[in-house]
Amino acid sequence: MHLVTIDEIRVAAETLRNVAVRTPLLPCSWADPDRPLWLKPENLQPVGAFKIRGAYHAIARLAPDARTGVVTYSSGNHAQAVAYAARAFGVPATIVVQDNAAPVKIEQTRALGAEVVVVPLPDRESVAHEIAERRGAVLVPPFDHPHVITGQGTVGLEIVEDLPDVDLVLVPISGGGLISGVATAVKALRPDARVVGVEPELSADARDSLAAGEIVHWSPRQRARTVAEGLQSEPSDLTFAHIRKLVDDIVTVTEDEILDAVATLALRARLVAEPSGAVTAAAYLNRTELPAGRTAAVVSGGNIDPALLAEVLRRRPAARC
Amino acid sequence: MHLVTIDEIRVAAETLRNVAVRTPLLPCSWADPDRPLWLKPENLQPVGAFKIRGAYHAIARLAPDARTGVVTYSSGNHAQAVAYAARAFGVPATIVVQDNAAPVKIEQTRALGAEVVVVPLPDRESVAHEIAERRGAVLVPPFDHPHVITGQGTVGLEIVEDLPDVDLVLVPISGGGLISGVATAVKALRPDARVVGVEPELSADARDSLAAGEIVHWSPRQRARTVAEGLQSEPSDLTFAHIRKLVDDIVTVTEDEILDAVATLALRARLVAEPSGAVTAAAYLNRTELPAGRTAAVVSGGNIDPALLAEVLRRRPAARC
Repeated sequence: MHLVTIDEIRVAAETLRNVAVRTPLLPCSWADPDRPLWLKPENLQPVGAFKIRGAYHAIARLAPDARTGVVTYSSGNHAQAVAYAARAFGVPATIVVQDNAAPVKIEQTRALGAEVVVVPLPDRESVAHEIAERRGAVLVPPFDHPHVITGQGTVGLEIVEDLPDVDLVLVPISGGGLISGVATAVKALRPDARVVGVEPELSADARDSLAAGEIVHWSPRQRARTVAEGLQSEPSDLTFAHIRKLVDDIVTVTEDEILDAVATLALRARLVAEPSGAVTAAAYLNRTELPAGRTAAVVSGGNIDPALLAEVLRRRPAARC
Repeated sequence: MHLVTIDEIRVAAETLRNVAVRTPLLPCSWADPDRPLWLKPENLQPVGAFKIRGAYHAIARLAPDARTGVVTYSSGNHAQAVAYAARAFGVPATIVVQDNAAPVKIEQTRALGAEVVVVPLPDRESVAHEIAERRGAVLVPPFDHPHVITGQGTVGLEIVEDLPDVDLVLVPISGGGLISGVATAVKALRPDARVVGVEPELSADARDSLAAGEIVHWSPRQRARTVAEGLQSEPSDLTFAHIRKLVDDIVTVTEDEILDAVATLALRARLVAEPSGAVTAAAYLNRTELPAGRTAAVVSGGNIDPALLAEVLRRRPAARC
């Protein structure tokens, strides 16, 4: 199986210049001095998530005559990213979304001009394939494609550019596209740095898979229990091959830790993060067994339901570090 | 009277490299296509506001043997900035804060190691001068100093670097340090761009001053009515000289428009902005008489009380553009 390379990620970075925001690393004055922390705020991308990188790059790599229509399945942020990128290329987009996705994500995807089809989580992928076949459209998967992985990998490239002596990079894991790309870039440019994935305890199939050395399946119903509704996918053969080779460890965080981290990011880093985007901060704040050193945490997305954010701010004091 | 120059701002930019975050311009996919909008998110600076730029630059320009202690008066963000910068230089800091400043700002200033003295708003400046004299410390004023103005001006330098064909730059006005520096940079590098200040309707003394051609005083009690508690100062002779020469217009926003903009920034731009930091977005969304064209809005700070942010999110739907 071909694993993506740093050279392929550099090509993606060229394609994404002036499309994705070159997000800065934000130093956190409230961090533990032994474990200085920088946040990579991918919630500030045009669609509110890193997903714009992989989606835009994958569509850009299609031959122009293949750009007659795109289809995807997504828990929401990839949906918006495909809709946004398709609009940029003037291509019609159809998005298959599971019925427990955050309403704000569905609404924003429609606002970007895409057709949205809502189905139960287990049917998502098959319905998307069926639509693609029926319409002769190209399926842009949320993570299981080299061009998506290399697009997401530009996050890792930028982290090492801005913090060449980074010691630890924390990345959320769902389907594994982001961490596959980030780990490829980080290990190529800074082999001594550790790359650690973060999952909700309630959706920790990738942790189990890494421990077992083979993909361990959790049922969709199990994975759907976490408030981090963007982290309910499971790795594919392709992303798991990257994870197994390149990722040092996977740690988990509780639901309470995730929601506390949403409050901390809002009040101490002035970033609106969705629960899935806050898991790395949650791991930083609570998994004290993580290695010390200069730490970068990817805040992957910021599309949170307003009512949930309001409740989190009302009920949870920002954690002190 | 000497007005600051673009060359002095370039010197400040060198000093601030690796101290202030090089904030990106964030494109807003929800903006009016005739008036594309980019946000300059200065709420992402280490202290949550642009103030770090002026404060650090002013202390850096002190002779080393003059760095025995610093004092300032501030509505809060400048306080944290001086505390942060003083700590970086190993200098003791004393901060005089008015008694209606947001509690979160007072708390965070103390957390940065500064001594905080709380007094009524009208006594702020005189108490700070008295402490400076008694202790032989240097007063670092929040806006009335060329080194502070040139530090803040780096915001304008960066806006034009990133968006060379910007047509309109929106900047909050309180004491006028930020807009004096930003207007100096923008007018030097892109003379055709308009620089427009934004004030709360309830604290619109700078608008009245610009219209009258001389400083018009509003009472501290009048200026203290707005929820934008960072915009209650009035320009000095120095900043007003810059404003009169360089600023094209000053517009005002209502309290409702300010709080709606806080919600919009949180939910559509994933930025936590304090009311003072949201006035430019409020002007963009509501002052349709503003000139069309490529617009940059400075989001100046993000230190908002958690309860206020929660209430805003609960009660105000994000404005659609």
